[in-house]
Amino acid sequence: MTSKYSRTELERIVCAVQQVDSSLEGRARAHLDNLTKPLGSLGRLEDLAVKIYVASGGYVPMADPARIYTIAGDHGVNEENVSYFPQEVTRQMVENFLTGGAGINVLARTSGVELMVVDAGCKGGPFPDHPDLIQRRVACGTANISKGPAMDEESCLKAIFLGLELANEAHEQGVKVLGTGEMGVSNTTPSTALYCAYFDLDPADITGPGGGIDAKAVLRKIEVIRRALDVNAETVRSSDPLAILAALGGYEIAALAGLIIGGAKNRQMICIDGFISTAAYAAAAQICPAVGGYCVLSHASAEPGYAQVIKALDRNPLLHLDMRLGEGSGAALSMFLLRAAANIYNEMATFDDAGVAPGGDL
Amino acid sequence: MTSKYSRTELERIVCAVQQVDSSLEGRARAHLDNLTKPLGSLGRLEDLAVKIYVASGGYVPMADPARIYTIAGDHGVNEENVSYFPQEVTRQMVENFLTGGAGINVLARTSGVELMVVDAGCKGGPFPDHPDLIQRRVACGTANISKGPAMDEESCLKAIFLGLELANEAHEQGVKVLGTGEMGVSNTTPSTALYCAYFDLDPADITGPGGGIDAKAVLRKIEVIRRALDVNAETVRSSDPLAILAALGGYEIAALAGLIIGGAKNRQMICIDGFISTAAYAAAAQICPAVGGYCVLSHASAEPGYAQVIKALDRNPLLHLDMRLGEGSGAALSMFLLRAAANIYNEMATFDDAGVAPGGDL
Repeated sequence: MTSKYSRTELERIVCAVQQVDSSLEGRARAHLDNLTKPLGSLGRLEDLAVKIYVASGGYVPMADPARIYTIAGDHGVNEENVSYFPQEVTRQMVENFLTGGAGINVLARTSGVELMVVDAGCKGGPFPDHPDLIQRRVACGTANISKGPAMDEESCLKAIFLGLELANEAHEQGVKVLGTGEMGVSNTTPSTALYCAYFDLDPADITGPGGGIDAKAVLRKIEVIRRALDVNAETVRSSDPLAILAALGGYEIAALAGLIIGGAKNRQMICIDGFISTAAYAAAAQICPAVGGYCVLSHASAEPGYAQVIKALDRNPLLHLDMRLGEGSGAALSMFLLRAAANIYNEMATFDDAGVAPGGDL
Repeated sequence: MTSKYSRTELERIVCAVQQVDSSLEGRARAHLDNLTKPLGSLGRLEDLAVKIYVASGGYVPMADPARIYTIAGDHGVNEENVSYFPQEVTRQMVENFLTGGAGINVLARTSGVELMVVDAGCKGGPFPDHPDLIQRRVACGTANISKGPAMDEESCLKAIFLGLELANEAHEQGVKVLGTGEMGVSNTTPSTALYCAYFDLDPADITGPGGGIDAKAVLRKIEVIRRALDVNAETVRSSDPLAILAALGGYEIAALAGLIIGGAKNRQMICIDGFISTAAYAAAAQICPAVGGYCVLSHASAEPGYAQVIKALDRNPLLHLDMRLGEGSGAALSMFLLRAAANIYNEMATFDDAGVAPGGDL
């Protein structure tokens, strides 16, 4: 009998994710080219409108309602002193999200998008109930990746299925655009390890200050990531993306990978936040390459390794604002750009409508 | 007796623009550093919040209400075939702005900012009255810059004072942030000529397709700009920024320069749009260097010469979206980022408020 959270069941869902049909692009471009502006003059906003059109399967682009899931989890590797923040800060920040005082709260409100907070793997007891909090913890934090695998495969699958369920719930509620957000003290460490494993990168080349450690601490973090890759070397060599996610990831990262795959299956757009969310995207894209057609990299994280990561992914983020907060902060901003793109597509006058002469030859 | 629109009167206003007091920066940074996020992790949003705080003279940053002035004017140089669009398109687009179907209408609505359209120098008869249209035309288009000066100095001053008055009216109505927008078929040509004159650049290095002309037409445009610089060589050599603006600019460009100087005098923030608006900013900054502390370059125009322009200005635009529409479209988007920055400053919880442990040493 197949478990509800099995590889087989995940593979079934992955097969249900449709590769976007890029032959639809021409229809969207033709519409945009007929609007009252010089051809292509809205640049990446036009590309975004086309992407949303194609991802939806050829419907007028919709960017609302939009919802960010900020998913929290703790990391055993925190005991290796890879962050200045104590592990309790994960819990404290979840509470901050629920009282509305964190960066992501402000930016989600500013962008007019909904924020849901998810406990996928925090340490300590359960949180008090709150209407914006989804408590579906898989475990109380991961094991220390520098000493062994972060999660066993079953736990990792549970976290992925949590994300799949979130995407489905949002879809049933009419949400058109999903945003990824995360909170987990030390989670640049597993994210960096995942990038090294998936893209054969050297920790020395892409490890950075994360929440703000100094150069000496970055050197220690590099050694911790080397040990993680070493102790999990057999899994890394297997090139099995799910096994690698279980060995080096985290509960919030696995849940975000599930959210991305689920969103793509539902033909929702997904705005990927920064360094950690992009690790979840990398995992999702390794498990299910078709997700790419539904995903937007929101912003270029200021984490120095991010430049190599986007090169490996061959993607170009929308915003370049030197941000490195996570939480979904960049996704909140990029959701505004998706709305701008959809509105351009749907609300601008055509040359005929407006009685404007289109540009001709000289 | 001094005319209302004299150099002397302009100099008086320029002297009233206060250099921003950068010693206020530390206070704004200290507040931001106490908010629940790793130090500096909101990157350019934090820089923006600081800039607004300093520009206001040390008040909490406010980004609303915000208003874009999209100022229209026609250009005699259009007869040199430097654009595929016929000159009537300036008027047709003004009408499109008033019926709400242009790119700037959509983006201003999306950003929640007000849009006012201004006729500073269109050809043809007056427009029908409209509540969103300010008809204060200085003249019916400029003369052909490839044959002589675009405007005489008095007309140029009138256009600058129109912009100053717009800034003052907005200020009286409580507007905190101004956005620059423009419409004028062929106006990348005078803008490019202004950059060449102000920054001693070669037309061959910074002339681009503007509204979308092909490579052959760009070569012709370069020759037209060379002739403009040649026929106005004495003025260019004078290094008198006002005389250069009159010789090579346009009514909408001069009015925007006035709007920028007036906004700075009123301690309003000014979001500069793209290639043409930045030429107005360059003129304003040459006339009144103190405006820099109040201005944000909204986005990096896709017009190829823009990279050299921002290098000459030593400024770094906020957005990089390959846009080249003008109208104020980039300003509309950057106004959203100013709001995000102000909200971050004003709405985020401090570490104390939220009971979150600030990062320490390892």
